Formats: sequence, structure tokens, C-alpha cells
Amino acid sequence: MPAPDAYQQLLALSREASLLSATSALLAWDQETYMPTGAGERRADQLELMARLSHERATDERIADWLSQCANAPGDEPQQAAVREMQRDYDRATKLPGKLVAELAATESRAQQAWASARDASDFTEFQPWLEKMVALQQQKADCLKQDGQTRWDALADLYEPGMRAADLKNLFAPLRQRLVALRQQLDLGKKPDETFKHREIPEPQQEAFVRAVVGSMGFDFERGRIDRSTHPFCISIAGDVRLTTRFHKDNVLDALGSTMHEGGHGLYEQGLPTQHFGSPLAEAVSLGIHESQSRLWENHVGRSQAFWQWCWPQAQQHLDTACAGQSAQSVYALSNLVAPSLIRVEADEATYDLHVMVRFELEQALIDGDLKIADLPARWNELYHDYLGVTVPDDRRGCLQDVHWSCGLFGYFPTYTLGNLYAAQFAAAADESLGGLDQLLQSGDFTPLREWLHEHVHQHGRRYSPAELCERATGAPLSSEPFINYLERKLHHVYEIA
Amino acid sequence: MPAPDAYQQLLALSREASLLSATSALLAWDQETYMPTGAGERRADQLELMARLSHERATDERIADWLSQCANAPGDEPQQAAVREMQRDYDRATKLPGKLVAELAATESRAQQAWASARDASDFTEFQPWLEKMVALQQQKADCLKQDGQTRWDALADLYEPGMRAADLKNLFAPLRQRLVALRQQLDLGKKPDETFKHREIPEPQQEAFVRAVVGSMGFDFERGRIDRSTHPFCISIAGDVRLTTRFHKDNVLDALGSTMHEGGHGLYEQGLPTQHFGSPLAEAVSLGIHESQSRLWENHVGRSQAFWQWCWPQAQQHLDTACAGQSAQSVYALSNLVAPSLIRVEADEATYDLHVMVRFELEQALIDGDLKIADLPARWNELYHDYLGVTVPDDRRGCLQDVHWSCGLFGYFPTYTLGNLYAAQFAAAADESLGGLDQLLQSGDFTPLREWLHEHVHQHGRRYSPAELCERATGAPLSSEPFINYLERKLHHVYEIA
Repeated sequence: MPAPDAYQQLLALSREASLLSATSALLAWDQETYMPTGAGERRADQLELMARLSHERATDERIADWLSQCANAPGDEPQQAAVREMQRDYDRATKLPGKLVAELAATESRAQQAWASARDASDFTEFQPWLEKMVALQQQKADCLKQDGQTRWDALADLYEPGMRAADLKNLFAPLRQRLVALRQQLDLGKKPDETFKHREIPEPQQEAFVRAVVGSMGFDFERGRIDRSTHPFCISIAGDVRLTTRFHKDNVLDALGSTMHEGGHGLYEQGLPTQHFGSPLAEAVSLGIHESQSRLWENHVGRSQAFWQWCWPQAQQHLDTACAGQSAQSVYALSNLVAPSLIRVEADEATYDLHVMVRFELEQALIDGDLKIADLPARWNELYHDYLGVTVPDDRRGCLQDVHWSCGLFGYFPTYTLGNLYAAQFAAAADESLGGLDQLLQSGDFTPLREWLHEHVHQHGRRYSPAELCERATGAPLSSEPFINYLERKLHHVYEIA
Repeated sequence: MPAPDAYQQLLALSREASLLSATSALLAWDQETYMPTGAGERRADQLELMARLSHERATDERIADWLSQCANAPGDEPQQAAVREMQRDYDRATKLPGKLVAELAATESRAQQAWASARDASDFTEFQPWLEKMVALQQQKADCLKQDGQTRWDALADLYEPGMRAADLKNLFAPLRQRLVALRQQLDLGKKPDETFKHREIPEPQQEAFVRAVVGSMGFDFERGRIDRSTHPFCISIAGDVRLTTRFHKDNVLDALGSTMHEGGHGLYEQGLPTQHFGSPLAEAVSLGIHESQSRLWENHVGRSQAFWQWCWPQAQQHLDTACAGQSAQSVYALSNLVAPSLIRVEADEATYDLHVMVRFELEQALIDGDLKIADLPARWNELYHDYLGVTVPDDRRGCLQDVHWSCGLFGYFPTYTLGNLYAAQFAAAADESLGGLDQLLQSGDFTPLREWLHEHVHQHGRRYSPAELCERATGAPLSSEPFINYLERKLHHVYEIA
């Protein structure tokens, strides 16, 4: 009976790596929330040590032997799934030569600094040599990782969204882009929501009590999680202890609400992973796209729905008091769906966000495939922004230098944001059908059936199924952009009073 | 040139162990401050893993070889000191057989549970078998560690206070005890301080602003540290990032002030250790007694002095407002020196605290030497409390079951509290002389010269000198109880208006 032993040994090692990751997560969380400013250098040393210890476990030579023993004596289906994912992790961790890993790490660090400086100066040429070096290294990386007829870009994207291929995305995105551009143009002619409420000043403690109440209603478990503040909101899991952060602006409570519901959606996914499998891939999130679907579902399909605001408005009035004067559930619902094409991705609304992503998707493919010269990136960026979003990019700072991703070596990452939106819409539609109408539930503030549906169909499975399988099992259909664009058109036509 | 290499390798390994300890410190800090209640089990796993990884580094077999290479080619004096301390750590980490270590760990965990349950039931017999087992294991541990004519108790105590021996402590403690008991009896006849201020209710935010201001004035560096809340105040260092905790009771601002100044004193020591040597013993605290001297000096010699209150009272009035009505610097100074013999060590005042310690010191020696049957512990405890403190112990909960220490295997630890008081008094007297009078500085709120004196004579040396050497170098004399008892008698005679 070699297999059970080998599997148990794999699990023990994987569990240790998970504990190290959880410890890194606490170090990172603390760094963004409570760490005093002078502790940064030593904190970097701690994070580096944890990363090295994790890497040692991920690349332990005994793993190959244990995995082949498991292949010879496969266990039950969940065990087979766990072993498949362990094999995937091991391959990814061991395929890159040490020299390339070191060069990538050094270049990431320096390219990121060059990017920050170039962005501040709004001067792409300062970043250009670093981006050239980074693209060359990513091409080498892709060549090491590539398998089964993947393109280079596919091989990189697979790190974030297992199974994702550029060809499939092009098919998903092409019709979507046309309808998004058309929708943007239609809305220009519609009735713009009233923005009065957006600029009302509300003290932070009131905003905080309000968003905490909403996230509590979503079912976020404060016995196994927290909410704190940070400059950029995030969600991080410290071994089943899930921590969200949020931020407050005096004059933008809807931003705080949206951010917190977004992170809350990530948090529900993390809290819904099967803790009894801690350490195994079965207790890990399956992909960035699926993770993002959970945040976007709560942020948009719930938090920007009319039904939600019917329930939420009295809560808002209770917490925010006089700031609500003269407003209504209807007016704030409309405002939360304001569409305004912008230059900056992270400030984008629900209807134009994916156009920002598509620009990056096209460009990074061209960069990795060598079809676009790095020097031509700014011009091509600006052209696509004009075509897709109808905006004129005035400088590189608000153009191709706005995102940190490429300087950190994150190629193939951006599309996971849009996949999140598509999965979210498809899950929301399936839940709506399965639960006999989400609107009634949201109107009454009963979020439990939706959370349980997501738990049953998404959270509890961890990495047991691939993202594509998970989608099919949960919704009965492969991923499509139809549910998303239909939902958006329906909602925004209604808000903008377009017949 | 084998030595420099060996030394560098020792340092690299030691640095890694220090980073692991710092990570454990963050895990522990978070557990006591912000961790959600449901995360405890996994947190224990993380702490256990960090402890194991630290232990692996502390017992790495290459260390013995590196140490002997260093012995053959000693470097400069600081390097020799670092190597001497590394040798000490290595011996301590490797002298205990694995089986004993495992048995100790298992027994500590279960004895602590038995102790908690016995204390709640106030029934010593429930704890008795566990204490018997623990004492037997500690005897075995002592036999493994013992060297150079140490007694068993000496070998255990050496873990907390290098070089401390029972025989020396007896010589220090015997005259001190007599004068402390005499002082206690004298004060019974003196003028008791007015307790009105003690019971005034003050909102937590006001208390917090007040104690933060005081700790800031002490020179605690908030760029490399924080203050948070926890049930029991503590100070912990996360690689140069020093975190204090404190607690607030609505009706006891002096408790919050004393606790925070106490932890602040520990914090100044940690912040004053030479960070350029991070990872080396040269950047570590030398002993528990010296650490405690830093907290007690700020808590008592500063925070309970008349000069301090002359400066502090206007600060208190500003922060605490109406709660200060009808009080004065003089009345609150007197109140902060209230002496009231009690049953519970952690609630003891400055004049009787060491009598609590002496009871434990006598008893644990007798237990380890086998001179006291475990079953006889409660009766002997109660007898000593009557003799030293003049109080009658009504039950074991408020008697020999009040402290967690013995259940955790901490034998030889208690006297470090009293050593802290003695060192503090001797340092304070030396600083007073060297700085031309502390009172004038404290009165004007100028704490910098005192902090700098402590930095120069204590903090910056880390483990370079033994506690005894450090004391001699800083004060020109070996440790004595005279400065402490003289200071106490002088101050309390004044407060209690005894001629």
C-alpha cells in the first residue's frame, strides 16, 4: 500500500507550506494595517524568509516520487483531484531554472521602482528599457512553462486562471466589446443619475458602522475574520481567519460600501472553503477569475441592484442620518450605477471596466508575441482607449503607466478581472433561477440563500474542479458573455430610462 | 582563515532564527490583540511550526563545528562575546534529550489546564499530581543542564538570569526581607494616602491620550513601535518593531499609567538594543532581571516619584479634566505609593511585591531539592504569607494556585522580578549621581538624559556582558539590595509621614 502513505506525506508537506503562507499573510496584513513606518526593512526580510521556506517545501525533491506513487494507486475522486493539483503546483514550482527565477525577482524589484518613477514623471521612455527586459524574461518564462499547444501568453495566463487561453478569450471578448461600446454610446443619450448624494460629507465612524452592518448581513463571519483600514482595500486569509480592509473618504460613502462589499465577497469565498482540508489544494481558491466573481457578484449584482437598495436604504438612513435627506432608495440605486468613461481602470464603472481590461489584454498579447514594439506601446494604448472608451489620453501617467502589473511581471493577469465579471453574471443568473428570484430575497435583506447557493456551487469545492468545470456544474453551461451583457443592458437601460 | 567564515555562517543562521522568532512574536502579538476568536487552533499550529523551525536552526549540527573554529581563531572582543553567547545558546538547546523535551512540552500543556481548573475550583489536590510530575521533570532537566557546581535550582534559574545562583540570592534577600517586613509594620502606623482619586471614573479615550503622552515623553519611538490593548499588558519585539499593550479600567487611571510606563520601560530597552547587530546575541536582551529593571525603573523610580508628579500633574489635568478636581500633584504622588499588603502578587504594591517573590523563591527551591513534599505546599505557602506579609490566606485560589508559572515549568523564574527591582534601584542611584540629580530632570519633564544614560550603560550592550558585569560596569559596584531598600524607606517614610 504505498499510495496512502505517499499521499499523507504530500499532505503533511503541503500543510506546512500552507501554514507558512498563512504566516506570510499575517506579515503582509500587518504591514498594510498596523505596522509602524520604521519596520519596513526587517519586515521585507521576514517575508523573504517565509517565501524561501515555502519555496523549499514546494520544490522538495521527494514530491516527484510521492506523486508518482499516488499516480500508481489513485484514491477516491477528491484525492485524485488533490493529487492532480499538487502535480500542477509542483510542475509550476520546478519548471523554471533557478537562474531565471533570480533574474525575474531582481528585475521585478527594479522595474517596479523604474515604473513608479516613470509614472510620477509621466515619461514612458524611462520605463521602456525595463519593460523590454521584463517582456524578454516573461517570454523565457513562458517557454519554460508552455505545454499542450499553449501560446506563450497562454502559459503565463494559466498561472492565474488554469486553462485560460487567449483564443477562447478573444471569442468571449469580441462580441462583448461591441455591445459594451454600443451600450456606452446609448447611455450618453439617457437620463444621468442625480449625483447629489455622492458629495455629502459623512463622518467616518458612521460610514464604518453602516458598511460593517451590510457586510454582517451578507453573512461575513466576524468570529473568523475582521475588517480594518488600509490605503488600498484587500482581502487576505490567514488560515481560515479572513481579514478584509476598507477605506473611507469623507465625501464618498458609496465607494466605501462598494469596496467593502467587494472584499466581503472575496471574504465569503475564503470563509466558505472547506477548512477540514486545510493544507490541501481542496481548501484553496481555484482561480483569480472565480475569486473575482465572488467579489463582483456581491459588489455589483447585489450592491448595485434596485432590490438591494430597497432593503438597504432604511439601513443607510439609520446610520448616515441627515446625509440621506432628500434622497431615496431609487435615487441612490441610480447613482450607484452611474456610468462615466474614464482614463483610469481602477476608477471605472461597471459598464466600462471591461473595456479597460480588453485594451490591456490586446496589448500584452502583442508584447509577448513580439507583434508590438515596446516603443510603440503608448501610441497603441491611446488609440485603443479612443476606440473602446471614447476618451483621449493626455499623458502616459494616465495612460499606459497607470498600472503596476507589468512592472511586477504580471502578464496574463488582467483578463481575470473580466472573467470575474462574466462568471459573476452567470452565477447570479443561475442562483436567481434556482432560488426562484433573487430580487425578493435581496429586498427583504435575506442574503442567506444566495450565500448558501454560492457555498454549495463554488466555495466548498476549492480546487476540486477546474474553473471551466466549476462553471458548467454550477450553471449548466460553459462560460459565456451573454448573461453579463444582458444583465448590464437591462439594468442600465432601466436606470438611464432608455426604452 | 577559517574563523571569519565560521563566524559569518553562525551569524547567518542566527539571523534566520531571529527572523523566525520575530515572526512568532507577530503571531503572538496578533493573538492577544486583534485575532478573531475562531482562529485560535490554526494559530497554535503556526506558532508550533515557527518554534520547530527555530529549534532546527538552534540545534543545527554544523554549529558545533563553527563554534570550535571560532574558538581557535577568536576575533575582536564583541565577536568573542557573541560567540560565547552562541555557545551558551547551543549548549542549552542541545543538552536536553528529545524525549525529555517532548515530555516537558506535553506535561506543560496538560499541567496548565489542570492548574486552571484547580484554581477555579480552589482545590490544590486537583493540581497536585501534575505538579509532582512537573517537579520530577524539572529535576531531570536540571540534571541535564547542571554545570560548574550549580545546584539543580541554579541550573534552571540560569535559563532566565545567566549566572544567578540560589546561594547569592539568599545573601541578597535575607537582609532585604527583614527590612521590608519592618517597613511594612512601620507603615501601618503612618499616615495613609487619600484614595479619592483612585475611584474616579475616567473615559477610556481620555486615559489613553494621557498614557500615550507620558510614554511619548519617555522617548518611546512610535515610528518603531505601537501601543494597543490586551487583557494582560505586555511588550514584544518584532525585529526592532516594539509593541506594547496596556489595559484600561474605568475607575483606575493609575493602573493604566503604571502598566504603560512599565511596558514602556521594557520597550525602551528593546528599542535601544543595537539594531545593526540584528540576529546576533549582541542585539538581544541579556536577562529577565535586567529587562525587568528597565520596566521597574520607569514605573517606580520615575512614575512613583514626587518629581515626576510635579511635571505630570498638569498633563493629567489637561487630559483627565474634571476627574482631577480637588486633587494635587502631592496627593496623587502619595496615592501612587499606597502600600497595602495583599494576597495576590500581581496586585502587590512596591513595598511588599518582593515578599511575594521571596515566598515563591523559598518554596520552589525546596520543591526542586526535594525538601518539601508537594502535598505540604499549601500549608507552607500560607505560613510564609503570614510571616512575611502578615496576611491570612483563605483558600488555595488566592494562595499557592494564583500563578501560572510552575504549571508551565517556569522554576527559577520568580526571583528575576526582585532582581529587576534591585537592579533598577542601583541603576537609578548611579544615574542620579552621574546626571547630577534626577529629580530636577523629572520635574521639568526632561527624560532624555535618563533614557540616554540607560542606553549607554544598559541597552546598547545587548548580551555583550553578563548581568553581573553589566551591573558593575554601569554602577561601579556588584548588585546589592541597599540602594533599593534605602530608596523605598526614604520615599515611603516621606509619603507616610514617618520621622
